[in-house]
Amino acid sequence: MRTAEIHAQHNKLIWFIALPILAADLYSSVSYGPEAGMTELIGLGAKAHWYIIPITIATVLLLGLLILSYIMGILAYPSGGGAYAIAKDNFKPRWVSLIASSSLLVDYILTVAVSVSAALEAVASAYPAVAPYETVLAIFCVFLLLVVNLRGVAESARIFAWPTFGFMICMLLLIFTGFFDELQHGFVQHHTPTFGTVPQGLSILLVLKAFSSACSALTGIETISNAVPVFREPRQKNAIKTYIALGVITSITLLGFAYHLYVNGISPNPNDTMLSQLIKVYFGHGILYQVIIWFTFIILILAANSTFTGFSQLAAIVAADGFLPRGFTNRGDRLGYSNGIIALAAAASILIIAFQAHTNALIPLYAIGVFLSFTIAQLGLTRRWKRVKGPKWQVKLAINIIGLIVTSVVTVIFAVTKFADGAWVVLVVIPTIIFFSLAIYKHYQNVASELRIDLSSFKPEANKVITVVLVSGTHRVVHNTLSFAKGIATEPIAVYVGFDDESIKGMEEKWEEWGTPCRLVVLKSPYRSVLAPLSRFIKIIEAKEQNSHVQIVIPQFIPKRWWHNLLHNQTALLLRLWLISQKDVVVTTVPYHLRK
Amino acid sequence: MRTAEIHAQHNKLIWFIALPILAADLYSSVSYGPEAGMTELIGLGAKAHWYIIPITIATVLLLGLLILSYIMGILAYPSGGGAYAIAKDNFKPRWVSLIASSSLLVDYILTVAVSVSAALEAVASAYPAVAPYETVLAIFCVFLLLVVNLRGVAESARIFAWPTFGFMICMLLLIFTGFFDELQHGFVQHHTPTFGTVPQGLSILLVLKAFSSACSALTGIETISNAVPVFREPRQKNAIKTYIALGVITSITLLGFAYHLYVNGISPNPNDTMLSQLIKVYFGHGILYQVIIWFTFIILILAANSTFTGFSQLAAIVAADGFLPRGFTNRGDRLGYSNGIIALAAAASILIIAFQAHTNALIPLYAIGVFLSFTIAQLGLTRRWKRVKGPKWQVKLAINIIGLIVTSVVTVIFAVTKFADGAWVVLVVIPTIIFFSLAIYKHYQNVASELRIDLSSFKPEANKVITVVLVSGTHRVVHNTLSFAKGIATEPIAVYVGFDDESIKGMEEKWEEWGTPCRLVVLKSPYRSVLAPLSRFIKIIEAKEQNSHVQIVIPQFIPKRWWHNLLHNQTALLLRLWLISQKDVVVTTVPYHLRK
Repeated sequence: MRTAEIHAQHNKLIWFIALPILAADLYSSVSYGPEAGMTELIGLGAKAHWYIIPITIATVLLLGLLILSYIMGILAYPSGGGAYAIAKDNFKPRWVSLIASSSLLVDYILTVAVSVSAALEAVASAYPAVAPYETVLAIFCVFLLLVVNLRGVAESARIFAWPTFGFMICMLLLIFTGFFDELQHGFVQHHTPTFGTVPQGLSILLVLKAFSSACSALTGIETISNAVPVFREPRQKNAIKTYIALGVITSITLLGFAYHLYVNGISPNPNDTMLSQLIKVYFGHGILYQVIIWFTFIILILAANSTFTGFSQLAAIVAADGFLPRGFTNRGDRLGYSNGIIALAAAASILIIAFQAHTNALIPLYAIGVFLSFTIAQLGLTRRWKRVKGPKWQVKLAINIIGLIVTSVVTVIFAVTKFADGAWVVLVVIPTIIFFSLAIYKHYQNVASELRIDLSSFKPEANKVITVVLVSGTHRVVHNTLSFAKGIATEPIAVYVGFDDESIKGMEEKWEEWGTPCRLVVLKSPYRSVLAPLSRFIKIIEAKEQNSHVQIVIPQFIPKRWWHNLLHNQTALLLRLWLISQKDVVVTTVPYHLRK
Repeated sequence: MRTAEIHAQHNKLIWFIALPILAADLYSSVSYGPEAGMTELIGLGAKAHWYIIPITIATVLLLGLLILSYIMGILAYPSGGGAYAIAKDNFKPRWVSLIASSSLLVDYILTVAVSVSAALEAVASAYPAVAPYETVLAIFCVFLLLVVNLRGVAESARIFAWPTFGFMICMLLLIFTGFFDELQHGFVQHHTPTFGTVPQGLSILLVLKAFSSACSALTGIETISNAVPVFREPRQKNAIKTYIALGVITSITLLGFAYHLYVNGISPNPNDTMLSQLIKVYFGHGILYQVIIWFTFIILILAANSTFTGFSQLAAIVAADGFLPRGFTNRGDRLGYSNGIIALAAAASILIIAFQAHTNALIPLYAIGVFLSFTIAQLGLTRRWKRVKGPKWQVKLAINIIGLIVTSVVTVIFAVTKFADGAWVVLVVIPTIIFFSLAIYKHYQNVASELRIDLSSFKPEANKVITVVLVSGTHRVVHNTLSFAKGIATEPIAVYVGFDDESIKGMEEKWEEWGTPCRLVVLKSPYRSVLAPLSRFIKIIEAKEQNSHVQIVIPQFIPKRWWHNLLHNQTALLLRLWLISQKDVVVTTVPYHLRK
């Protein structure tokens, strides 16, 4: 079943229900974006505080431009399509679309790591006792998300609308409370830092760096454009409506939040998030504080959760095109792409451990992937408008060209300002993924061409099969195995490996007593190896009977209880592993299920 | 090959070469035995120091009695035989011999843990910087011993004679230096604690406890009696000569060492072994100190090493009798019983980690197993003399009865005085091992009786085989698999599992285009499971064709490079695992080795 078919079974979403469901990823970022920006300027002291205002305004302008560009994307691809699909449609060289896909995949991983870390930092602000266990608890959260996603969450997605609504209301409440407070106490208060002063040591590079970090608040914009098919008809119009509404709410929140942070002179504190500090200013340390902190926690976890669907679906699409291991296209029982879900959880856990769940340490790696894929998508759309044209194509083209210029400039700013802080890791990882993607593609092509046959001329004919049965004595298991072997072969060969003359003679006598069920070959192995003499025997047969299949029949005990396996030599298993990997022989396992 | 045969290939050992080779286990214990005893009395201060003299005398008397008893054992069983063999020969109930074997196995594990820990404590006395890494280094030593033993050490055993000789010479040198010193400075010196005073807080229980701990110096006596076959003829006489010589040297060492410790007023110090302290008194901190410390280290490691042979051989003997998993009788390439060697290393490592490589923490668990097996052996010998009689049997019987009484009293003293300190662990573990041993025996008996058949009447006849081939399309791998299947079956059935009508129709058309190589059954699986429809299909066949073998033929890709496995679904592997464990079907894997 395709995603579309699943959704067809449910009601499509009304836009104001779709809004919170699809908003978690973008909207949750407001809780850490402004703080990430201000952290870069912390060394300059209170005189630099006012920079939060212009930086946030620039971020909001960028947000508006990105949303406008994405609306162009929806107009171009009504059935939805992320940067990968757009690039694939507009560029012939495969590596262009692979830049988009691999940078998005990397950023999805970072989204999980950053969101979960930020969620725990929010909780640790309220409960300092949690702080030493942030990494462990973050890993635990990722594990829970893994389990939930493996069990499948798509059907209950509507539930996720409410916490996001709740968090939006909390943030708006905070902002309006702030304004009422300022109406009473003045828009510039005694603890408000001065505005417009240029502190010592400030450089353009530093401001750009702060801006780059603040832009981490913009990750998650692409969610709606990927999800156009889930909207109620008219899908395009509703998706665009949602985009605009989300843009407006996010802008209000970012600007209001940043302004109140400035007015109250709040600066970053590693043990207390700026959001937590601001809530305490207006609501104290009571029940409302708890409610907002926990809503923050939940929305950040939901942001990480939505990434699981995004990552595994993108990985599946890229894998279906042959650029990632085919296993990513496997669906589990609950229709989730299990391997993608597991891969994401593992990669995010590694990041969380490596960075000790510190959001601000992860930020330099973050967002660059998203902006890289934005750029590719804009470039693709630009090409499309020039090719396809359509109504008002010049306007759309103009928007995407502006978007292209701005996002590529922002990407370069990112790469330059944060290169040494960790962005270089991403700039090494993305080409590596592309390199492997191309190698994987080539491998699949090679295999496909090796396997292709001409159906009209190359038909399966019965091949000669030499059946060799390994026997260890003359008991019920051997009886069962020989009965099977005689059923498929007219002349099976029984092979017995003996460690000394005594046991070989004993076997030969018993075999005769049994009426020689078939030809018996005894191999002496003074060094107690079964593999070596068997290997020699197989070579002799292969030399004598070329182009025929050699089949080794191995009996295997299946005990009634699993721990009984410890009591039986796993010779059958080891032999099979060795034969399959080292030899070109067919291996047949005849199970004998023990009754006791 | 049996151990005897291996030894037959080499020269048998002259007794004075055999002495150091077989002495490492017992003689190395002198380095920690007296210290373990004195540690129990540390709370009583210097007034209790003189107790080292009577305790060591009691230990030496016990040593003499044990050696005498073991000589009786050699006279009774000239081909060698430990407590397990003696018990097996003299008691019908299996649990009696199992007490001997399981207590010995437990004690072998403790020997490795204690010896390696003591070896590192010796080194840490000389190099305090090593102290924090004792556990890690101890694990590393066990790992080295594991590797060395898996590679086989029996042939180079003669090399091991020299370090033991060296350590003996060091100890005797130390003792004679001590006597010369005392000849010059007096046998009672100014720092010698008073003799014969009864310190406050001393109880009989405490003295018995100290004695129990000091008896850890007696572990390893059984080595010679197990090794009688390695001696040059007359074997018995030479083994007895070795026993007596070893007894004399060990007694002199223990008594001399204990006396000098007393004279110099040396008390236990967790950071500096008593041996190390005594060496410093006579030789200072120079080259001789280094030599003796490193000889101590080496002999303790050799003691642990000799245990690997002892443990794995005993486990193999018990396993051959059906009381331990049969895997313990498997020999590796180098003729060592690999599984026993690995099991010992693993168990000893767990103990070292659990007790942080503290010798004195391990001591309470130690030696009780040895004394338990001593007691069983004495009891067995007592019964034997009464049954078999022979020359001077009354004398031998009397010796073993005295031995029996003393060792059983010592065992009870051990169990009571050290119960709370850790002996209870051993007293829980030993019955648990016996319980599982009996369960394992029963399982093997059940299996054997289930497998036993009458060769004259129950002969293998060709059974009807239904061959089912899983096909995933019409390519080269399927061609190869079908050619094989048609070679062994006249009417194989091809089964195709499709996830939607489209793919099923496509397969059916291609199959026809291929000239219908055999009957094709298509199974539709809307939920993308292969197992469920296949399981239903197998059930239908089994219901229709009773008493016949159902054979499932699965093609399997074998990529050229191992990491290519990541790029191919491991369906064949998973299907095979599931079929073998869940169903009574024969599973045939037809490999297709990719060329690229």
